[in-house]
Amino acid sequence: MSASKSAGRNRQWRLAARPVGMVQESDFELREEPVPAPPAGGFLVRNLMLAFDPAMRAWMEDRPSYIPPVALGEVMRGSSVGQVVASEHPGFGVGDLVQGLLGWQDYAALGPGAPLVSKLPKGTSPREALGVLGTTGVTAYFGLLDLGRPRAGETVVVSGAAGATGSVAAQIAKIEGCRVVGIAGGPAKCAWLLEEAGLDAAIDYKGEDVGQRLGELCPKGIDVYFDNVGGPILDAVLARIALRARVVLCGGISRYNEERPSPGPANYLNLVIQRARMEGFIVLDYAPRFGEAVARLAQWLAEGRLVYRVDVEQGLEHAPRTFLRLFRGENLGRQLLEIAAPPL
Amino acid sequence: MSASKSAGRNRQWRLAARPVGMVQESDFELREEPVPAPPAGGFLVRNLMLAFDPAMRAWMEDRPSYIPPVALGEVMRGSSVGQVVASEHPGFGVGDLVQGLLGWQDYAALGPGAPLVSKLPKGTSPREALGVLGTTGVTAYFGLLDLGRPRAGETVVVSGAAGATGSVAAQIAKIEGCRVVGIAGGPAKCAWLLEEAGLDAAIDYKGEDVGQRLGELCPKGIDVYFDNVGGPILDAVLARIALRARVVLCGGISRYNEERPSPGPANYLNLVIQRARMEGFIVLDYAPRFGEAVARLAQWLAEGRLVYRVDVEQGLEHAPRTFLRLFRGENLGRQLLEIAAPPL
Repeated sequence: MSASKSAGRNRQWRLAARPVGMVQESDFELREEPVPAPPAGGFLVRNLMLAFDPAMRAWMEDRPSYIPPVALGEVMRGSSVGQVVASEHPGFGVGDLVQGLLGWQDYAALGPGAPLVSKLPKGTSPREALGVLGTTGVTAYFGLLDLGRPRAGETVVVSGAAGATGSVAAQIAKIEGCRVVGIAGGPAKCAWLLEEAGLDAAIDYKGEDVGQRLGELCPKGIDVYFDNVGGPILDAVLARIALRARVVLCGGISRYNEERPSPGPANYLNLVIQRARMEGFIVLDYAPRFGEAVARLAQWLAEGRLVYRVDVEQGLEHAPRTFLRLFRGENLGRQLLEIAAPPL
Repeated sequence: MSASKSAGRNRQWRLAARPVGMVQESDFELREEPVPAPPAGGFLVRNLMLAFDPAMRAWMEDRPSYIPPVALGEVMRGSSVGQVVASEHPGFGVGDLVQGLLGWQDYAALGPGAPLVSKLPKGTSPREALGVLGTTGVTAYFGLLDLGRPRAGETVVVSGAAGATGSVAAQIAKIEGCRVVGIAGGPAKCAWLLEEAGLDAAIDYKGEDVGQRLGELCPKGIDVYFDNVGGPILDAVLARIALRARVVLCGGISRYNEERPSPGPANYLNLVIQRARMEGFIVLDYAPRFGEAVARLAQWLAEGRLVYRVDVEQGLEHAPRTFLRLFRGENLGRQLLEIAAPPL
């Protein structure tokens, strides 16, 4: 798919309906608009690659959260890497690669003020930027280190461990000297955790009894739990936390598509017995420190201590169905969608 | 009931059965033994007043916790104030009032080593010691201040607010300059919270919609929640926490008598959206700092800034049924049982 193919038109996926239960392709509508002109003093970005995260499901709901909901008829919000194709902005030149919430569309026009995008560091590819140096990697970094505070020798458990955020959190825990158990769905993901990501153990929640395996693999209890899924796995972990454990709530993919909230973790009172803590965070709060995280992640990447994987689909027309892959656990690594081949 | 009446015999309530679901009087058995002789170098304490807490229900279960379970046939563990009636111990003289886990019995013999009891500060009555300067007051002190970290102007909600621990936590929050909403069962408890304890508002969970009232009374959300009950009230609070809220888990009386754990708080994912924390603690961990807490509580008491209430039944023979009052919400303030009139 080349840029020229869609020149002159701007395809946009707009929110057509608020999902009830599991999100559906019909919740989105494909529209075509003329390519917008950049506002005076602003610039125009051609999207190259979109990224998808489970948390985007929450943005489709009409209820207060940490970020306003996407309005009906509005272009679906989403992270991407794009390239500047026209500019009157002093900070952005034609050809620059940028990253930000540019939405599910071919083109985004940005104004002259403080831009909501950042330039990619020199030499960083869109895959690297979205796969490990973007929001998910930074989320793993601050969630694990600031809230989880792992100490060498401790036992760390990560759910969604083969996912974009979990896989980075698990590897940082290894770098910090911890024993790390990853929970993921299916033998292929578990094999990747052991052979590529270097974890100490992996549990296949689709084929194994998670509680029993946690008991076997964590005989002294779980010191840090980095939770991406919620549901019964969170409960199984809470039953086995160690004294002064830290449970980091990063998300709860098992709950995002529920019409009514399912019960919470029945074992939460173990937080009392173990003098433990369960804490949530939103990575946007760490924006002033993103540079620190990206620099360390890039260094670990360069040293070969951090591996990542992306799962790349093709074509903006497939954005909704690519998004749905997340909720079926089909993606291996961060789910991306290439919509134009760089460099333009 | 005078000491002489039971001289020569030591009535003991022993654990006869592990409770299934709601604890019953038949889970205990009354036995009579001769009054023990103090071991060489030790001392003998006559219990004057027993105190009862919901957490004692958990000690009756045969499962690992922060304290070993009471064995079948063993004297039921419980806090009390007693008076030394015979002593070869250099640290304890006849007539001294002491506090500790002396159990549901008339007499306890203690050895010569490090005693598991502490002497009451001069001038402190058994009611004062057990009602506000004992475990429950100290629990409120550390739970609220160390975990809740209330700041002046913040909104603090306390459940079980008319109880022994909750009432102290709520008043400390007032002393710290917070707006304090107490949740309790029935108009009499709520009236006490407003008129005696000086809270800003009270919610009667038996007669009002807790969620709706919290919404009205806490329009900016709840900054600190001191939870003694768990269950639907915890869930209603989690739905209304403010940014960076602290949820202090002190206990969960609604759950102690359940045969199987009921669902946890469905709204726990609000901890993510609000970047909030839910944390448990056990007051025994603060033992080295008890002196600090007791001194400040005693000072507030002397200044008239702290009030407390005890609910005193009479007679060791009524220990089990007095304990059961807790789970029917019948007690107003800490539940005590006078078994001998001081001073002896």
